[in-house]
Amino acid sequence: MTQNVYDDAAFFDAYSRLPRSIQGLDGAPEWPALRALLPPLDGRRVLDLGCGFGWFCRWARAHGAAGVLGLDVSARMLARAEAETRDPAIAYVRADLERLDALPGPFDLAYSSLALHYVDDLAGLLWRVHAALTPGGALVVSVEHPLCTARARAEWSADAAGRPTWPVSGYLDEGPRATDWLAAGVIKQHRTIATYVNVLIRAGFAISRVEEWGPTEEQVAAHPEWANERQRPPFLLLAARR
Amino acid sequence: MTQNVYDDAAFFDAYSRLPRSIQGLDGAPEWPALRALLPPLDGRRVLDLGCGFGWFCRWARAHGAAGVLGLDVSARMLARAEAETRDPAIAYVRADLERLDALPGPFDLAYSSLALHYVDDLAGLLWRVHAALTPGGALVVSVEHPLCTARARAEWSADAAGRPTWPVSGYLDEGPRATDWLAAGVIKQHRTIATYVNVLIRAGFAISRVEEWGPTEEQVAAHPEWANERQRPPFLLLAARR
Repeated sequence: MTQNVYDDAAFFDAYSRLPRSIQGLDGAPEWPALRALLPPLDGRRVLDLGCGFGWFCRWARAHGAAGVLGLDVSARMLARAEAETRDPAIAYVRADLERLDALPGPFDLAYSSLALHYVDDLAGLLWRVHAALTPGGALVVSVEHPLCTARARAEWSADAAGRPTWPVSGYLDEGPRATDWLAAGVIKQHRTIATYVNVLIRAGFAISRVEEWGPTEEQVAAHPEWANERQRPPFLLLAARR
Repeated sequence: MTQNVYDDAAFFDAYSRLPRSIQGLDGAPEWPALRALLPPLDGRRVLDLGCGFGWFCRWARAHGAAGVLGLDVSARMLARAEAETRDPAIAYVRADLERLDALPGPFDLAYSSLALHYVDDLAGLLWRVHAALTPGGALVVSVEHPLCTARARAEWSADAAGRPTWPVSGYLDEGPRATDWLAAGVIKQHRTIATYVNVLIRAGFAISRVEEWGPTEEQVAAHPEWANERQRPPFLLLAARR
């Protein structure tokens, strides 16, 4: 089973205090770029893999989706999602993305925000997602950028000119990394950009777009503390079609 | 016009002493991975963008290609290519990839090894290559990996545990970099992996495969001096179909 760190009380408490947990989608700086990858949602059936507090599920309904199924392994997150949702067309189901047997469906869109880097058997999951999509259905995904997952521990350094640099090592050695992020020993799966793309293609998807997301100049002006994120991207966004 | 550094006498002399200039394809450690992306060549028409000494042109003919057109901006390289080729089905033409007006064709395969990171107007070039390919035709390309082109100057560093690390900065700021490689002030175009993929898709290609190439464990055992190249990939390989 996937490590269920979101049900760890201390982790959950710290996670709940992040801007994206308080403000929802608008608290996530990559959201405008991710939203731009979405197809029209009017009347469409949506699957959210790793739905957390259900922010995207409710947004999708507010933007015309006919129905949304949100899956997450964390009982704590789903409890808050349920408490904040009054909509019979949104269903939350507790599920381990690592061992989904079969998905109901079909769906027109499968969406996942910052969840798939926890999944070991990504090929198996994407195969099942592909089978659950309508022909032409879309997949839109964000994950931690492989430059961030490569090293278990990475800290900004500086070059001779004082410019911030991000140290890379072990990039080609894929597999689990135990990192300290909100709690000690959080397991993330490191894989290269190439692997993300190739696993999608092998599952039958056609790649529509890849984004290595960093803040825009405008976002950096509003949040100077994000400036380093332009030196190397924190998130990888992928859009594909069945 | 593209900077034609290969016609600089000192650069050409240094380049001519690289293993890949002496041993040909087998002197390029990424060649087995690039070769694995190629379609069958029997009876096919092949275009080589940045053909250099013509090693691939001759290899393609030896592996069944019906005809090969090699393009390069360097008169010195083409002179050696001509001198080493006795095959009327191989044509070498001096051309600036930056301003190809139209390509003859159609071709079944467009190939390019370590040339496209010199090209500024990559979108324009790929548009013309797409138009010159048969439907279903293949594009197989290698470029310097964006982790290597991001910084004009990068040197290996080491982390607290003594592990080699590669410093990354400026990754999201695309554009020219003046680097010192065999000669001072060699201009390479830095673009992200995402941009390489998206420019291909926008030109009409379907992505078949992406490889972030590093040496295999076997290659490192035979060439211990390549060990660092597993910490971060030196080359990006792309395969796509019209």
